[in-house]
Amino acid sequence: MVWDPAFESAFHPKVVAIVGISAKASLNSPGGTRFLNTYQKMGFAGKIYLVNVNATEILGYKAYPSVSAIPEPVDLVIITAPAKAIPEILEDCIAAKAKNVHLFTAGFEETGVEEAKELGKRVREIALRGGIRMLGPNCMGLYVPEGHIGYMHVPPLKSGPVSYVFQSGGHSDWFSQHGPNYGIYFSKGISYGNGYVLDSPDFLEYLASDPETKIICMYLEGVRDGQRLLKLVRETNLQKPIIIWKGGLTEAGSKAVSSHTGSLVGQSAIWQALFAQTGAVQVSSPEEMAETTMTFLYVKKPAGKRVGVIGMGGGVSVYAADACGREGLELPSLSQSTRDELNKFIPEAGGSTKNPVDCGAVFVDVSLLVREMDLVAADPSIDIVILMPHLNLARNIGPEQVDKLVNYMTDFALNNRYNKPVVIVFHSFINEDWENELSTKLKIELPQKGVAVYNTLSGAARALAGFCRYQRTREDFTRVNS
Amino acid sequence: MVWDPAFESAFHPKVVAIVGISAKASLNSPGGTRFLNTYQKMGFAGKIYLVNVNATEILGYKAYPSVSAIPEPVDLVIITAPAKAIPEILEDCIAAKAKNVHLFTAGFEETGVEEAKELGKRVREIALRGGIRMLGPNCMGLYVPEGHIGYMHVPPLKSGPVSYVFQSGGHSDWFSQHGPNYGIYFSKGISYGNGYVLDSPDFLEYLASDPETKIICMYLEGVRDGQRLLKLVRETNLQKPIIIWKGGLTEAGSKAVSSHTGSLVGQSAIWQALFAQTGAVQVSSPEEMAETTMTFLYVKKPAGKRVGVIGMGGGVSVYAADACGREGLELPSLSQSTRDELNKFIPEAGGSTKNPVDCGAVFVDVSLLVREMDLVAADPSIDIVILMPHLNLARNIGPEQVDKLVNYMTDFALNNRYNKPVVIVFHSFINEDWENELSTKLKIELPQKGVAVYNTLSGAARALAGFCRYQRTREDFTRVNS
Repeated sequence: MVWDPAFESAFHPKVVAIVGISAKASLNSPGGTRFLNTYQKMGFAGKIYLVNVNATEILGYKAYPSVSAIPEPVDLVIITAPAKAIPEILEDCIAAKAKNVHLFTAGFEETGVEEAKELGKRVREIALRGGIRMLGPNCMGLYVPEGHIGYMHVPPLKSGPVSYVFQSGGHSDWFSQHGPNYGIYFSKGISYGNGYVLDSPDFLEYLASDPETKIICMYLEGVRDGQRLLKLVRETNLQKPIIIWKGGLTEAGSKAVSSHTGSLVGQSAIWQALFAQTGAVQVSSPEEMAETTMTFLYVKKPAGKRVGVIGMGGGVSVYAADACGREGLELPSLSQSTRDELNKFIPEAGGSTKNPVDCGAVFVDVSLLVREMDLVAADPSIDIVILMPHLNLARNIGPEQVDKLVNYMTDFALNNRYNKPVVIVFHSFINEDWENELSTKLKIELPQKGVAVYNTLSGAARALAGFCRYQRTREDFTRVNS
Repeated sequence: MVWDPAFESAFHPKVVAIVGISAKASLNSPGGTRFLNTYQKMGFAGKIYLVNVNATEILGYKAYPSVSAIPEPVDLVIITAPAKAIPEILEDCIAAKAKNVHLFTAGFEETGVEEAKELGKRVREIALRGGIRMLGPNCMGLYVPEGHIGYMHVPPLKSGPVSYVFQSGGHSDWFSQHGPNYGIYFSKGISYGNGYVLDSPDFLEYLASDPETKIICMYLEGVRDGQRLLKLVRETNLQKPIIIWKGGLTEAGSKAVSSHTGSLVGQSAIWQALFAQTGAVQVSSPEEMAETTMTFLYVKKPAGKRVGVIGMGGGVSVYAADACGREGLELPSLSQSTRDELNKFIPEAGGSTKNPVDCGAVFVDVSLLVREMDLVAADPSIDIVILMPHLNLARNIGPEQVDKLVNYMTDFALNNRYNKPVVIVFHSFINEDWENELSTKLKIELPQKGVAVYNTLSGAARALAGFCRYQRTREDFTRVNS
């Protein structure tokens, strides 16, 4: 099946039907009630119809015996009924011409049970025969802040330029909820589970042409049409960065996939070829997905991969150099003229003006930090600046000076006149309440302002290296294609 | 130089001299004042003499013109004077028979300046000729909670079984301060910088025979006598686990080392051989050092590397399996009888009783968690249990039930009747104040109670894999040697 524009009404539905809320449900019940709950809390302004043949009223809603009995066209049907009831419900949807269906229900081939596999086949056949545009089964469905629809724990109502296509509802939930900690907000979130009808290439095709989507994140376990996915990723990635987490690349992971979405994971080598041939950015954990997305959102495009690190302490400098070097970033020495200027306020003993630049004093004196940042960013051998302030020094200077330092770093990252990318890693803070608080606050607040802040140096180096590779690959591909 | 027992008085000094505090110093001055400050705050009960030829009183202390002028034997001399003054001060120490010297001062070969290199050579020659047991130069010196001595930011006063030998003062400071977040407390912390006289093998030899040290952590940039280090690591590692972070293994890192301690880093292959030949555990970041140390401290010794994972959500299960598989851990299927029992309360649809075991319900119902934990831990195919509670479910059950769950997990990790290792990863929590607080609290409090808690699944898998490899290697080596 290829993308059908008629599915778009599912992203901004005006009329939604939920099939499968029990007649005795309370607002805390799992399943369909969770959608009802979330839609209400997100301020969904459309109409919601509940369908249950055994009830006349549920949770204050009039209950309809079938989708066909609903007196108006339905934009989106959410089905949370037990697996065995699905064929009949789908036939009802077909009869009602309600073709946008999100099948939340699990319990098909992923159980490994023969009977359930057969049922899954039947469900898929019915959907295909009836032209049902099905999302699922075994998935959370759609999260669209602008449409005021979402799932599970109420996700943020603020929209953003990132969309995701995830084969896992748990990862979808994590990403929607934790995204804001990294300054990430979403346009469309798609959790599609076993992907019987609509599969990752369908969603990718849609997001590629969606003007509100600028960055695409994918969590994939398998795909039905690998060639189509490869072609679409290759084409789309040139316009919008695609960040892919492929689950099940190890033997143990592949076994776990069979219990999850029942997908055929494909050989690891095939997926490695997809990354090589498309230039898509590969990640392998939720945290890495989030840090990489933040990087694409907020880090200015670097001219190259030569990093200048501003930190404190020789050991941390070695760590920074190793972490960057391991990921393929370069740390050139600063030019002699930059070093001469730095040496005017950085002592040779206990400091360094090579690269990393090591000088604790700048983290207690804004005027020194201003000079240092400016000199390093100005150096023609540097493409990216990593700034590693040591919050534990803050105890000596008081909250007012800390604010000044943070404001300066923020401003420099956002508006430096060299237009170079500047990111922050808070490496060190002391385990005292106010410093823990300060660190947590900054790590969450600065990304909201558009400054990339990383929890660890290794994480920063990995994300930046992926970002640099992407820029280079895109240029290469564009050159070849032009 | 080999270890001289006379240096031991430096770890529990009764009389300390600080050389190099300026006559005009305030309590906020850097350098020597920081030691004075920290010693006072740590309740150091011995005597402190300040030495400065240009003063008669500093910060309320009588100032002595030289170490020789101090009227009693000095256990430890801390020198923070400028580099050019060091030769003369060392001669004074020799004359005073004060042979335990911590040379904080930097500014030697690590500056790259010819004159400073020469000065460093001279300093080393004087120290060797005079039989000075020198720690440094360019280092923080000693942190011994029991001796009430430490450096920089006041470190914890509580003692523990971990000792470290770090060539970086910044890493030493980080580890001392952040250790408690991982349940790590220290017996001896040694920051030794450029290692002119006493070098890593000397400290290792001491810690190997120190009854208070059970685990040894090392951060190394280079070593003067590699063969001696290899021999000592190999021997000691059989008795006490040695966790080593080698800085400067990349080209960029090796350049940074030359600006830090000026050490010759050695070829990467040589260090890889050291790890292979000794079975020492390799780490490569401060966080990994801390998580690995926590693992050795608190995780029961596993019979093998077969992991059972208890989590929630199919995607998280795939992530867990991939993360473990990548590190070489195994995830066997649970036995049929275990699965039959689990199936009594874990639904086939939307759950899994293979491995990882996927069932959200157990995180909202203590009685289900009790059954699940017991069944998985009892399974003969499982050596280690990773538990991944989802704190976001806690919002549905209230603080009292959360306490019950946490207490049960703690108790099971500490006292399960199968005597199997059980660790925790808090994967998911919602970005709301109380859940952030709960998560931070648990991540810090549980390790204090002896339960290993990891920030990420990847981190847990890496630390556990290193732990398993260590156990196996130790058995192999012991067999070969016996």
